[in-house]
Amino acid sequence: DSGRLNLPFTGICTFAKKPYVEDWGSLDADAAILGAPFDAGTQWRSGARFGPRSVREASTLFSFGHDGAYDHEDDATYLGSDVTIVDMGDADIIHTDTIRSHANIEKGVRAALDAGALPVVIGGDHSVNIPCIEAFEGQDPFHILQIDAHLDFVDVRHGVTRGHGNPMRRAAEKGYVTGLTQVGIRNVSSTAREGYEAARSMGSDIISVRQARDMGVQALAKRIPMGERLYVTIDIDAFCPSIAPGTGTPSHGGFLYYEVLELLQAVANQNEIVGIDLVEVAPDYDPTGSTSILAAQLLMNFLGFIFHARKMS
Amino acid sequence: DSGRLNLPFTGICTFAKKPYVEDWGSLDADAAILGAPFDAGTQWRSGARFGPRSVREASTLFSFGHDGAYDHEDDATYLGSDVTIVDMGDADIIHTDTIRSHANIEKGVRAALDAGALPVVIGGDHSVNIPCIEAFEGQDPFHILQIDAHLDFVDVRHGVTRGHGNPMRRAAEKGYVTGLTQVGIRNVSSTAREGYEAARSMGSDIISVRQARDMGVQALAKRIPMGERLYVTIDIDAFCPSIAPGTGTPSHGGFLYYEVLELLQAVANQNEIVGIDLVEVAPDYDPTGSTSILAAQLLMNFLGFIFHARKMS
Amino acid sequence: DSGRLNLPFTGICTFAKKPYVEDWGSLDADAAILGAPFDAGTQWRSGARFGPRSVREASTLFSFGHDGAYDHEDDATYLGSDVTIVDMGDADIIHTDTIRSHANIEKGVRAALDAGALPVVIGGDHSVNIPCIEAFEGQDPFHILQIDAHLDFVDVRHGVTRGHGNPMRRAAEKGYVTGLTQVGIRNVSSTAREGYEAARSMGSDIISVRQARDMGVQALAKRIPMGERLYVTIDIDAFCPSIAPGTGTPSHGGFLYYEVLELLQAVANQNEIVGIDLVEVAPDYDPTGSTSILAAQLLMNFLGFIFHARKMS
Amino acid sequence: DSGRLNLPFTGICTFAKKPYVEDWGSLDADAAILGAPFDAGTQWRSGARFGPRSVREASTLFSFGHDGAYDHEDDATYLGSDVTIVDMGDADIIHTDTIRSHANIEKGVRAALDAGALPVVIGGDHSVNIPCIEAFEGQDPFHILQIDAHLDFVDVRHGVTRGHGNPMRRAAEKGYVTGLTQVGIRNVSSTAREGYEAARSMGSDIISVRQARDMGVQALAKRIPMGERLYVTIDIDAFCPSIAPGTGTPSHGGFLYYEVLELLQAVANQNEIVGIDLVEVAPDYDPTGSTSILAAQLLMNFLGFIFHARKMS
Amino acid sequence: DSGRLNLPFTGICTFAKKPYVEDWGSLDADAAILGAPFDAGTQWRSGARFGPRSVREASTLFSFGHDGAYDHEDDATYLGSDVTIVDMGDADIIHTDTIRSHANIEKGVRAALDAGALPVVIGGDHSVNIPCIEAFEGQDPFHILQIDAHLDFVDVRHGVTRGHGNPMRRAAEKGYVTGLTQVGIRNVSSTAREGYEAARSMGSDIISVRQARDMGVQALAKRIPMGERLYVTIDIDAFCPSIAPGTGTPSHGGFLYYEVLELLQAVANQNEIVGIDLVEVAPDYDPTGSTSILAAQLLMNFLGFIFHARKMS
Amino acid sequence: DSGRLNLPFTGICTFAKKPYVEDWGSLDADAAILGAPFDAGTQWRSGARFGPRSVREASTLFSFGHDGAYDHEDDATYLGSDVTIVDMGDADIIHTDTIRSHANIEKGVRAALDAGALPVVIGGDHSVNIPCIEAFEGQDPFHILQIDAHLDFVDVRHGVTRGHGNPMRRAAEKGYVTGLTQVGIRNVSSTAREGYEAARSMGSDIISVRQARDMGVQALAKRIPMGERLYVTIDIDAFCPSIAPGTGTPSHGGFLYYEVLELLQAVANQNEIVGIDLVEVAPDYDPTGSTSILAAQLLMNFLGFIFHARKMS
Repeated sequence: DSGRLNLPFTGICTFAKKPYVEDWGSLDADAAILGAPFDAGTQWRSGARFGPRSVREASTLFSFGHDGAYDHEDDATYLGSDVTIVDMGDADIIHTDTIRSHANIEKGVRAALDAGALPVVIGGDHSVNIPCIEAFEGQDPFHILQIDAHLDFVDVRHGVTRGHGNPMRRAAEKGYVTGLTQVGIRNVSSTAREGYEAARSMGSDIISVRQARDMGVQALAKRIPMGERLYVTIDIDAFCPSIAPGTGTPSHGGFLYYEVLELLQAVANQNEIVGIDLVEVAPDYDPTGSTSILAAQLLMNFLGFIFHARKMS
Repeated sequence: DSGRLNLPFTGICTFAKKPYVEDWGSLDADAAILGAPFDAGTQWRSGARFGPRSVREASTLFSFGHDGAYDHEDDATYLGSDVTIVDMGDADIIHTDTIRSHANIEKGVRAALDAGALPVVIGGDHSVNIPCIEAFEGQDPFHILQIDAHLDFVDVRHGVTRGHGNPMRRAAEKGYVTGLTQVGIRNVSSTAREGYEAARSMGSDIISVRQARDMGVQALAKRIPMGERLYVTIDIDAFCPSIAPGTGTPSHGGFLYYEVLELLQAVANQNEIVGIDLVEVAPDYDPTGSTSILAAQLLMNFLGFIFHARKMS
Repeated sequence: DSGRLNLPFTGICTFAKKPYVEDWGSLDADAAILGAPFDAGTQWRSGARFGPRSVREASTLFSFGHDGAYDHEDDATYLGSDVTIVDMGDADIIHTDTIRSHANIEKGVRAALDAGALPVVIGGDHSVNIPCIEAFEGQDPFHILQIDAHLDFVDVRHGVTRGHGNPMRRAAEKGYVTGLTQVGIRNVSSTAREGYEAARSMGSDIISVRQARDMGVQALAKRIPMGERLYVTIDIDAFCPSIAPGTGTPSHGGFLYYEVLELLQAVANQNEIVGIDLVEVAPDYDPTGSTSILAAQLLMNFLGFIFHARKMS
Repeated sequence: DSGRLNLPFTGICTFAKKPYVEDWGSLDADAAILGAPFDAGTQWRSGARFGPRSVREASTLFSFGHDGAYDHEDDATYLGSDVTIVDMGDADIIHTDTIRSHANIEKGVRAALDAGALPVVIGGDHSVNIPCIEAFEGQDPFHILQIDAHLDFVDVRHGVTRGHGNPMRRAAEKGYVTGLTQVGIRNVSSTAREGYEAARSMGSDIISVRQARDMGVQALAKRIPMGERLYVTIDIDAFCPSIAPGTGTPSHGGFLYYEVLELLQAVANQNEIVGIDLVEVAPDYDPTGSTSILAAQLLMNFLGFIFHARKMS
Repeated sequence: DSGRLNLPFTGICTFAKKPYVEDWGSLDADAAILGAPFDAGTQWRSGARFGPRSVREASTLFSFGHDGAYDHEDDATYLGSDVTIVDMGDADIIHTDTIRSHANIEKGVRAALDAGALPVVIGGDHSVNIPCIEAFEGQDPFHILQIDAHLDFVDVRHGVTRGHGNPMRRAAEKGYVTGLTQVGIRNVSSTAREGYEAARSMGSDIISVRQARDMGVQALAKRIPMGERLYVTIDIDAFCPSIAPGTGTPSHGGFLYYEVLELLQAVANQNEIVGIDLVEVAPDYDPTGSTSILAAQLLMNFLGFIFHARKMS
Repeated sequence: DSGRLNLPFTGICTFAKKPYVEDWGSLDADAAILGAPFDAGTQWRSGARFGPRSVREASTLFSFGHDGAYDHEDDATYLGSDVTIVDMGDADIIHTDTIRSHANIEKGVRAALDAGALPVVIGGDHSVNIPCIEAFEGQDPFHILQIDAHLDFVDVRHGVTRGHGNPMRRAAEKGYVTGLTQVGIRNVSSTAREGYEAARSMGSDIISVRQARDMGVQALAKRIPMGERLYVTIDIDAFCPSIAPGTGTPSHGGFLYYEVLELLQAVANQNEIVGIDLVEVAPDYDPTGSTSILAAQLLMNFLGFIFHARKMS
């Protein structure tokens, strides 16, 4: 107890009011939050550069100054004092320069990995997943779970290879990425028919929202290789615009909250989670704040599940 | 017929365009609406002080100048001319002074009870439930149905006993409150593990959204003591932020409209409703107006069900 | 390929970035989009006059410069280069003058029909359906599918016969309208009990959201006369305010996206679609843009289904 | 003293929390407020139908429960208990029917005049000025002071004679209107060169914002016939969009607050004010509420000046 | 140089991206920023509790990673590396408890004073000025410059002594406050005629916006005792709602930017500034962010002037 | 006359409802409007990519279907049928690729110049001025008038040479740019002291808002070389945030409407205007629409002045 009531609306907005560690060489934590406020990869609305700030701010809503978060449905207390989380601040973004901005993001993720911390990156648009995955060069192989409305599997269009329509293609090309499960995919996007065919040929398992609903969360989780190291990339537009309107390219027909939460809880229990990014929160398109709150609520629960599972195992 | 078309967008905004009765000593109605615009009990966003005004305004959307509201699904006309509703205006709020503001709310509820009218209080934050329940001191015992995202069962933190995290604990302490059914409870909040344990030990039945869905509305209604006098307190954050973003502490994973409406219809038929409060509408966080419209639509239908049931019985 | 990347956020906002044809005498297309920016028929919020512009703008989100839209769930490419769509611009609206504004809308629909194009009208409030239907005078008979929260079956109130509460009554009176299926109807509105009785006596099949859900989309589609020519009128308030808050008279408890999409896909396959209107998008009440995006996503998919079915048959 | 603190955010929203008088036959007051929520006369944004409600709500900000409003600059207390103001509610608006809606507005103004009360009409769009002026048929002649961005002097275009571009032409045609002073006029509008010429030929004095500034408020006031009966019509778009963005057709370069307030104070002292309308507040285009607050602050001060001047004279 | 470009939109939101010092016992800086997110003292809109966070966020707009801020008009570089500023975070606020919340604010200001740092408090509503002034008990006497729309000189109403209408009265009662200059005061408020009389009798100099304009900034500055220690309290509603709509009780007719900036520059040069508070920023009422940007721009320039003047003297 | 009333809210949103010319090889007009929806050069808020669409939409407010725009202050009709304006649509933007996006903008400007049309570019962020100026390579020399809050004279920081802080430096380097007059410059920005010194040494005349006000518009205009060919670049943040909050980096203390309008009218009369860009409108940060309306009103009047002056000369 800090001697403070520490109501959610008070205090500096680091993620979950956790300590800010400016010196990335001295990281010492179970999980490290990194902001990646880059939005030059977007094809409709920009604004995801304010994603990290808004998710941090929203995360304070769930910080009541208790020691851990009690969940009556699970009868468990998550993120108690035994779990250490730090906020690394943001990667340095260089306007007009995609290559160097991406390099700076990669540098941050590498710093977290070097420190043995779980990297948790808050975008920024989905192109920031590219340097996140590149930072794992040299690490053991892993599978990727993408939760998203869009396949993002464009190889190259008009020379663009690092936009927010390209990341899953870039990931699939990596030798240390063993495969992809792409969940929530629906409706038209920048990926044309060829992209779907390429994805399937490169080992992707593509599942729409309706297909995911039909099979149920347990069957869905089983589509992901049990026990394998798993990187999870969450594009907030995987969700229904009803709860996530604050995003660059909304698509109706998306997931509701528990559909994704339960999938995350399942993989936290069946896989080793090696990295997370949550992208495409463009807060200024949602004056209610629901989108940022969703992102924060999801990340905090996912982190809770991961470290609870580690403790249980 | 008033000789007017009386379109929804015209006229003074009392609740459902019903008469305003300034002199609480002369109340004569089946139901009496009281605003309780107090929001100093909040732990994240304030703004619920404008709840009463916004719900009144939204209620005019459903006031088409007909004699009663025809529902084709029930083949029934609700709130015909045989049901009298009045608007008492607002309790007098004293800024910086929780005790006196609460006392003024209690005074209004007592006036309604003394007049034999069903008190319907529009908050304000959930702390206004405390004086509402206190106004029933001396009345016959009753059960409480709470529809809410949060347990609100904090005993005391840093000396606070009348904030919006305390009301259900305060209610449970009353001799004339026979028990609580707490529905919709989910995710972390100001109530820690001890609060849940205290609630259960004091006789609470705690049900999450997913648990409520799994059992279905009929089974859910049966968890409430059949036939018993029932006070219903509805925190708008029980609902999914998709339809109720305009609230102080949104929590994803909430109820959709019919889930709550059908529960209210069930209890209107199986219990004697002795009082209602609907709280935590903070309209300025929802520029679409959906939250206020939800509150108004819910209250008008609930009142319709209650007086229809009374007539049928 | 235009030689351009043509990202969604670039370019002039015609519907789906299709050609604008100012001279209605020279229309030559499979489908013709007509704006009908009239909102003087509303009984609560106005603002639907900006519906056409906002739906056009939103439609560009789904225009990635590919040749057609690939749907991985259906493994089909919709709206390829074989389908020609043009944008007629807007009907000329005369402020303060309902009769002449309606006449100008009728003129536009007649122009599309004369050219053999499928007329697709974007409102404006639901009163614009009245001239749309009147434009079919002299055409072969057809059935109407209305997807809406409100019955809109008021005969006349205070002399009003062409407001947004009247269109389905006006349609039912036409000799060439063989019947109506009215889906999504719920809660109180300007149509009183007498209106429901009149509708039923004039051959309407009235189905609420909950009734539609209970029977499922296939059974629902079967309530519509198989194979018959079908006009589809979609009031955006048929949808849940969670995804369509930007409308004049929101009503909670509405449809979610796939419930309507699948119904539209079913009728595209079982009926000959002869006309479409989509009304009551009032974009300025939805700062997130979700409502306009919903309207655009729905129309583009519906058009895809229609022309795909024509090709298949 | 009501025994209440009566903070601005509490209570039913009549204008300045004054009594609502539903029976227009029993009016007995110095001033009578009438809402005229008609917006079918607009040529760009609609939404002025919510002007009366929003101005009433904003007026409560200035109602602190004191007996009168003390102004330290004038060392005067305005609107003390000797001045009686009532709120008549709104004229009955018939959607799609301009003629009958206007007739109902005229009826309300006549009721105020018959009761000897100063009619104060809150629009609605500027077309509501037409029935306001028509209600003075049979009264003594008067001059009109229009404060507006637009000349509104269109005779007839495409048959429209009662839109919001026509009122000043309609007024100038009345035998009992002795002349017009049109202040704030700037930039392009629906009135073409012919309209300006007609206005001048019918006796109008047209003054732009810059011209008004150059001459100063005292010289400006002198352009209005001293001592003559004066009707004042204020289009909120006379003001700079910086303080009045919530309006149908904003025009940059408008007046700031004191420029208009001081003109109103001057005419309150030099003329007999016989009627007032304030129009074109479209509150939903201004999420900050500044526009409605401006309208309320202006009306309350103007009424204060008028009744102070009457008492002094 | 940090080796980072450090664009304004990146990084943790402390004030001006300055270091956060959680341990108030180890403060060592020229100026210390303290958030006071208390808004239970408001009489119309609440929401000022988010003032500190929004002003911190806005302050990053002016943080381009240079060493100091060059002003070409003054040909000076402000806030270079010789000036040390720290962010203390927020005072602990106890919901429902004004007394203890105020005590915690006082504690923070005392910590800054004890460390020899200039305390700069960001509200919160204007009641937070009460504990700010109380923290100076035991310090040398000083004059107060209040820049505000409202006099805030209510002694007690309905028992309220620490609301946002009381602070200047509370200050004037202190033995160590030598006098007040109250600038910007206009229109009606919670202070009645008696309050103005009391203020004048207790030594206040009350100046309206128009009076300030008439005399000019140099004459205005001379109304403040030259050379005296000066505490400056800035209520953002002193400004015109055109640039500060995001506040609890807006009042038209306020100051524009340079009018206040130049007054602050003048007093920075002629007085010893001993404390600052800036209050009543309620950011959620201004979706454009202008109000928070104004507050941040003003504070950063004022701090620049103060430490530049100290260096020059 | 088109036979249509053509109210501002109807019709396809090209600039001023002028013809859209997709084939840039066939341009034939006095002025050609080009959208440059690029915003990756921004250092705080992005969103200027929607500038072209929003300014086009706003421009329709001033399009009443008359033949030209009558201005009663100048007693002139601007932009009559003798002036031909076309809308070229938008330059093709390649996300993540600044170089190619800029090249596409340059291409569009060259097409206008080749056709002998005045190029009028709507941004986009201020970096789009770089390709605009580069398109004049090979043309006769000209002076630049920049109206802006920020100097934008950064040479290179962290490798960035084509961001929105660099354009005036890039322009000054061109042999065919004879000098710059930079008006409205104030407060801190990305340009440090060195940038100001470089600007002055390269021939810039830097004038703040207060300096411009002090000298008056006629003296200000004289600071620009009389008769010289003049390119005008207008950053909307030159204006006060009160009327232009919808921009990336707002700065308080900016110009009001007539201050800039009159300067533009003066240079239209004294210089040959060879090109125009108006940048940094980020419409989604201004829900009122005032910023876009300002941009449209300014451009339409400036074009009116230019072609009126050409006709007069």
